[in-house]
Amino acid sequence: MVRQPGQRASQAPSGTSAGTEPRFWAVIPAGGAGTRLWPLSRAARPKFLLPLIGERSLLQQTTDRLGRLAQPSQTLVVCGPAHAVAVARQLPDIPEANLIIEPAPKGSGPAIGLAAALIARQDPTAVMGSFAADHDVRDEVAFRGAVQLAIRAAQNDHLVTIGLTPTRPETGFGYIERTDEVVIDTTEGRAFRAASFHEKPDSATATAYIESGRFLWNASMFVWRVSALLDEMARLQPELHDGISRIADAWGLPDQERVTADVWAQLSDSTIDQGVMERAMNVAVVPAAMGWSDIGDWHGLGELLDAVPGVTISSDLVEIEANRNVVWSETGRIVALVGINGIVVVDAPDALLIASRERAQDVRRVVKQLKDNGRLELT
Amino acid sequence: MVRQPGQRASQAPSGTSAGTEPRFWAVIPAGGAGTRLWPLSRAARPKFLLPLIGERSLLQQTTDRLGRLAQPSQTLVVCGPAHAVAVARQLPDIPEANLIIEPAPKGSGPAIGLAAALIARQDPTAVMGSFAADHDVRDEVAFRGAVQLAIRAAQNDHLVTIGLTPTRPETGFGYIERTDEVVIDTTEGRAFRAASFHEKPDSATATAYIESGRFLWNASMFVWRVSALLDEMARLQPELHDGISRIADAWGLPDQERVTADVWAQLSDSTIDQGVMERAMNVAVVPAAMGWSDIGDWHGLGELLDAVPGVTISSDLVEIEANRNVVWSETGRIVALVGINGIVVVDAPDALLIASRERAQDVRRVVKQLKDNGRLELT
Repeated sequence: MVRQPGQRASQAPSGTSAGTEPRFWAVIPAGGAGTRLWPLSRAARPKFLLPLIGERSLLQQTTDRLGRLAQPSQTLVVCGPAHAVAVARQLPDIPEANLIIEPAPKGSGPAIGLAAALIARQDPTAVMGSFAADHDVRDEVAFRGAVQLAIRAAQNDHLVTIGLTPTRPETGFGYIERTDEVVIDTTEGRAFRAASFHEKPDSATATAYIESGRFLWNASMFVWRVSALLDEMARLQPELHDGISRIADAWGLPDQERVTADVWAQLSDSTIDQGVMERAMNVAVVPAAMGWSDIGDWHGLGELLDAVPGVTISSDLVEIEANRNVVWSETGRIVALVGINGIVVVDAPDALLIASRERAQDVRRVVKQLKDNGRLELT
Repeated sequence: MVRQPGQRASQAPSGTSAGTEPRFWAVIPAGGAGTRLWPLSRAARPKFLLPLIGERSLLQQTTDRLGRLAQPSQTLVVCGPAHAVAVARQLPDIPEANLIIEPAPKGSGPAIGLAAALIARQDPTAVMGSFAADHDVRDEVAFRGAVQLAIRAAQNDHLVTIGLTPTRPETGFGYIERTDEVVIDTTEGRAFRAASFHEKPDSATATAYIESGRFLWNASMFVWRVSALLDEMARLQPELHDGISRIADAWGLPDQERVTADVWAQLSDSTIDQGVMERAMNVAVVPAAMGWSDIGDWHGLGELLDAVPGVTISSDLVEIEANRNVVWSETGRIVALVGINGIVVVDAPDALLIASRERAQDVRRVVKQLKDNGRLELT
């Protein structure tokens, strides 16, 4: 790597390149409030900071999971200013320089692009993987196997996405369609050339996707050489590429903050999916089954908690002819359910949510209504 | 009246007899925890002490309602030791001597019998009426009209009960069957000779009762000359009559407490319905419609609150496609309901109840389970 004059070590990603095999860098974009998990998730306390499963937060579990693949010095977290302190305290092993604060949310394109550009400044041949901070993975061995396969495909200059083998015709996720063209074939699995990316389908379309056997859930897990991503970004989103390059050039210099603020404010919102992956050449997909969940809403969290041995929702509960309920209490109060089935109860200190599990997606409408009514302290 | 030697005025019912027309005394047995209204009702905070409808408690509303018929000096409240302080503070106008503390709950027979015996010591020709402390009456004019008619029948030495014209085939109440024999006929209404008392029926029987047009709900509203009640009690329950007479004889004397404690402990449990009314001669019933409710459970309270203009359940509520819910919050928290219909939510500081309205009766099972588990602080 070329160290910039005046660059402070503590402000640059702290890995150093060594050897010929490209090293793996992990990037964790930590964004999104998770309004469907209200009232537990709030703007100031988003889903990734919460210990929803076990005692560590989803962000901590994500770094734990990636810790077998990348050193803390090669792990970057991108988050907003409002969450920087909590992220720093939850992840004491991640070097200060590896916590990248984006001035405002602009979507995954700028966040992941900036991380790639910062890594490229240090380690031009690096392979990086990007993984959301707020997802759950039950089978970590399968996860690591899929990432390692994806790294091999990335070394062949593919932009790689790991696609989850769908277990139901879910309409809440995007899908990746694969071709039959195998780009990597190992005893642990295969990577295919991707055909196309698809937005959230309607129910009939989702069913057809599942039946085809060629569609995978898009969980926004990406692996690529940083140079490959940046080259495609330069071709497909030249303004974004120019912006993140200018910020990366200033990173660690006295005018880092000013340049970052000025440039970031001019960037358009974009996602890495729409901005790059859907239009890039040479995209590969690694199909994988790893017990993945995005913990999208209380119904999903309830299913997950049912399925995880030893993990139960803590609550002092009395049930009289009550079944299939998800009860999450943070108040220590006793909760009694009588003749009630299939609901979600979230008992937070300042708010009580009761929703049918089938309508758990609509919890976001409560948050919207509170915002519309100016009750921001509750959102 | 004959004042006993040594009797302190403050310890005897404080009315004094005057004139030839018997005066009306009101007796309010204030017992029963109302476990179906848990977690609002508790052993230490029974239903009658709670302001369930409006700002005054059910007990206060009961004395307010009776205040147009009887002076505070002729109004007696019978309650247990655990509730004496709260009753005394809620009813500052009721003289100290008119708050009768029963050492332990023995059913309505001993409670009402003792009140009658104490009134009889002061005012042997008195007519008294007994009305539960925890019922609601919407039409107070109709209530007073029914009581006045009952008083006239009582002056003819009937033991009178006011029976509510049933509005549905309720299986949660006892019923009174009337004959066609009219014992009082006025422009305001008629009193009939009663035929029989019936326990809570099954659903088919309740429907048959309603269709007959001769059955009325038994709301335990009784009106009689104290002498008539005591005479029948002497005939039908001589041990009870003897016991309450001994207590009444000692009332206001130095050994009141000892005698009351000794005698009360020996009394068998009994209700005035089963002990006297079902077996007495000369029982009359005044049919009346007065918008009566016993506020038996949360479903019933919900219906009542829907029907009472200007009375709403206080709660900071957000409803997204939610209907027919009863939400009672005492914590000031926001309550959000999403895709939820026909449930009861009671949000108390130390307990949260969520029940289907159809199963509101089973809330008592929560209380039982808590007691069985030794969690008395919650019951």
